[in-house]
Amino acid sequence: MEIEYIYLCVQAVDEKKGCNYLMNTWNIFGEISSDLQLVEKELQEAVKGPIPVLEEASSHLLAAGGKRLRPAFALISGKFSNYDLKKMIPLAVALELIHMASLVHDDVIDASSTRRGLPTVRAKWGNRMSMHAGDHIFARSLQLIHSIGNREISGILATTSVKMCEGEIQQILTAFDIRQTIKDYFYRIERKTALLIAASCRCGALAAGAERAVVRALGRFGHYIGMAFQITDDILDLTADQKKLGKPIGGDIRQGIMTLPMIFALRYYGENSRLAEILAAREKGEKEIKEAIQLISAAGAIEKTREISRRFVEKGLRELAILPVNPTRDLLEKLAHFINRRNY
Amino acid sequence: MEIEYIYLCVQAVDEKKGCNYLMNTWNIFGEISSDLQLVEKELQEAVKGPIPVLEEASSHLLAAGGKRLRPAFALISGKFSNYDLKKMIPLAVALELIHMASLVHDDVIDASSTRRGLPTVRAKWGNRMSMHAGDHIFARSLQLIHSIGNREISGILATTSVKMCEGEIQQILTAFDIRQTIKDYFYRIERKTALLIAASCRCGALAAGAERAVVRALGRFGHYIGMAFQITDDILDLTADQKKLGKPIGGDIRQGIMTLPMIFALRYYGENSRLAEILAAREKGEKEIKEAIQLISAAGAIEKTREISRRFVEKGLRELAILPVNPTRDLLEKLAHFINRRNY
Repeated sequence: MEIEYIYLCVQAVDEKKGCNYLMNTWNIFGEISSDLQLVEKELQEAVKGPIPVLEEASSHLLAAGGKRLRPAFALISGKFSNYDLKKMIPLAVALELIHMASLVHDDVIDASSTRRGLPTVRAKWGNRMSMHAGDHIFARSLQLIHSIGNREISGILATTSVKMCEGEIQQILTAFDIRQTIKDYFYRIERKTALLIAASCRCGALAAGAERAVVRALGRFGHYIGMAFQITDDILDLTADQKKLGKPIGGDIRQGIMTLPMIFALRYYGENSRLAEILAAREKGEKEIKEAIQLISAAGAIEKTREISRRFVEKGLRELAILPVNPTRDLLEKLAHFINRRNY
Repeated sequence: MEIEYIYLCVQAVDEKKGCNYLMNTWNIFGEISSDLQLVEKELQEAVKGPIPVLEEASSHLLAAGGKRLRPAFALISGKFSNYDLKKMIPLAVALELIHMASLVHDDVIDASSTRRGLPTVRAKWGNRMSMHAGDHIFARSLQLIHSIGNREISGILATTSVKMCEGEIQQILTAFDIRQTIKDYFYRIERKTALLIAASCRCGALAAGAERAVVRALGRFGHYIGMAFQITDDILDLTADQKKLGKPIGGDIRQGIMTLPMIFALRYYGENSRLAEILAAREKGEKEIKEAIQLISAAGAIEKTREISRRFVEKGLRELAILPVNPTRDLLEKLAHFINRRNY
């Protein structure tokens, strides 16, 4: 029911700014909704600084919204133990800042001009500002992580940051390479997405002083759900309504990022196929991108990919078995399903 | 004497790779020379990772050398208290990595194609790789800082990182703006350079468990010497032998960065002068850059700037008064003088 409601909200704010859409998304977050609003306020505070243009750039990025999934997972994970809002908020904010910083740098790299329906920092302020705005947002996250004062959390986030970079670099190195395996794809999306979501769950649990077994279970849940999240993202890049997605579809084909539906479809058509030709080409027009999407879809690759995403969600849900059956666990389960079924 | 020797060494390896030059520079570092060689080895380890191209890019950057001033200041600062090499090395390596990361991102931004006489990461691997290589190097520093396990150190370095970004952004925002004051210039170079050198001294002292007063004195020493270092750098950008400097001179004029000699010269000639016209122009040829350098020099602005640098060194040296008179303090004093007198 709630998920349906969110879809309606998203459609209703389709033409509006991302922040409205964000406000409505919060309905899925149940018991942590009001705490997430506090996260939002603290995010605004966190990007304040002595340089107005920098603050404007970061606020602009915040206004573009996003699902605030990482803060949400951290807060919910904390709810299973001694949830202390004062400890949870800096963590939640830091996680979203790390994510934001990676998005800003991604935009510099990918030369994409819209993200979440709003012009990117790069398009509005140029590459140089984007680069340093990303660095600044990331550095601000370090101050927050420092303020938490939990060594295990800072260790997890340092290692996660290193691996996230490795994922980005791997993505560049393998661009337009049609000989990638499913394993290569999983390696990349783990680093690109799953690790930070897993870290959000683990750190959320740690900040609340959870037992080892709970930290581990939530970490694994986050890992699997993170994988499912990225796989769904990669499906949406091929199938979504451009307006709902907030950016042009087929972006991965344009940038040569081989996603799971492409890998499945390439297996179906072979390396000498028309699809292979389009995907490997560094320059291509909108007509060819459309053609590639049709070929991928006709090969049944989208459905096959959906199945993989479903399986990751199931694996994730199984990790919750050791947790008590309560509304917080229900909320986590709902979020896991939402991630798989969303259409934006 | 030692300083003279270094100059000779530098000239001797003029045509060779930076690493040779680096080896010879170590002679100035006296009692910490062998520990600095260990830092060098650990730096190599720190940039290792699962992606060969990334490792190659980072090793390339390491081979280009650099003065390793930040590690040196950290180690020497530790020598006044309970110097424990195991604690000092990760800090020294982390400091150099933070510095390296900022250089890599600077290259992306500045579109400079040589740094320290070798092609930059950007020129060799492209902007996308540079950006993520910089992020990766910075994230590796976080792992090392984490391993030190000293909250005060991680706090200082987080705040320093935030402010360093603000300095970079301020530099972009004020590019080609001839109405800058000396105060604006000091604001920028403090963030760009002095803060990390001050942090190196403070953290080095903290890692060795120094008393508050010693930490503070060394921090202030680092601040003043860092200011002098950047001022000297800005002089060298106008006056150095291109081969010795390892990059084309006049880079700041090209990029519109208003340095102290320019600010002094602009005061002398006025806002409607030929110099003002060249400095404010976003596009300019080599001929105009040469003309600007001659004008700056003829105004006596280089000498005036040298005087400011000298004064910062003096202020720095005064901070050492509370430290015991011993070979370590002599070494710090020597380094301070070297910074001011170097010609590369």
